[in-house]
Amino acid sequence: MSPPRAYTHPEMDEIVLARVLYALSDPIRLEMVRRLSLAQEADSLDLADNLARSTLTYHTRILRENGVTFTRSHGRSCLISLRTDDLEDRFPGLLQSLLTSLEAEEPGIAKADGS
Amino acid sequence: MSPPRAYTHPEMDEIVLARVLYALSDPIRLEMVRRLSLAQEADSLDLADNLARSTLTYHTRILRENGVTFTRSHGRSCLISLRTDDLEDRFPGLLQSLLTSLEAEEPGIAKADGS
Repeated sequence: MSPPRAYTHPEMDEIVLARVLYALSDPIRLEMVRRLSLAQEADSLDLADNLARSTLTYHTRILRENGVTFTRSHGRSCLISLRTDDLEDRFPGLLQSLLTSLEAEEPGIAKADGS
Repeated sequence: MSPPRAYTHPEMDEIVLARVLYALSDPIRLEMVRRLSLAQEADSLDLADNLARSTLTYHTRILRENGVTFTRSHGRSCLISLRTDDLEDRFPGLLQSLLTSLEAEEPGIAKADGS
């Protein structure tokens, strides 16, 4: 069995506002963040519907590399969580404001269970 | 004298969160928004330092086309303002949260007068 894949993440002081906003500037990634906000941690496969695996990997990488999410491997799965505390320390209130805006844009969706 | 140039702007219901975040996903455009937040309206030339005119036009166009700013021509000038009320109606609290995050990232800069 090969060792679990290690993912690189920016340190907290490397998290830059412009890049966080870039990571969130795509409807697919916004939906991923919305689903993650409803779970402590999620399998990457549950973050989007009907995406090619390579596309899914691309979007989860953008979120990770820009400091929005934390990724770890677990067996054959790739588990992802929001870096809620890091983002809150770095940019107080921003993540909640973005989630509120997402809900303002698509009322009701944020109440779905994302499954 | 030629008539003033007319600029197109998205209607309020055409303002989309992902695109607003895209418009703000660049340090130059974030700085433009910061300066605009300190003024009711500003000449486009005052929104950035040492940018080629074509680069300046590119960035102000991205802000305008994604619903962040309003642009009007005035003589030979191009005057720009934040669509504060429209953004507040569409995404309550978001703009202020972004400005607060920008200040968290670069303390003190947001207190400069931008001139």
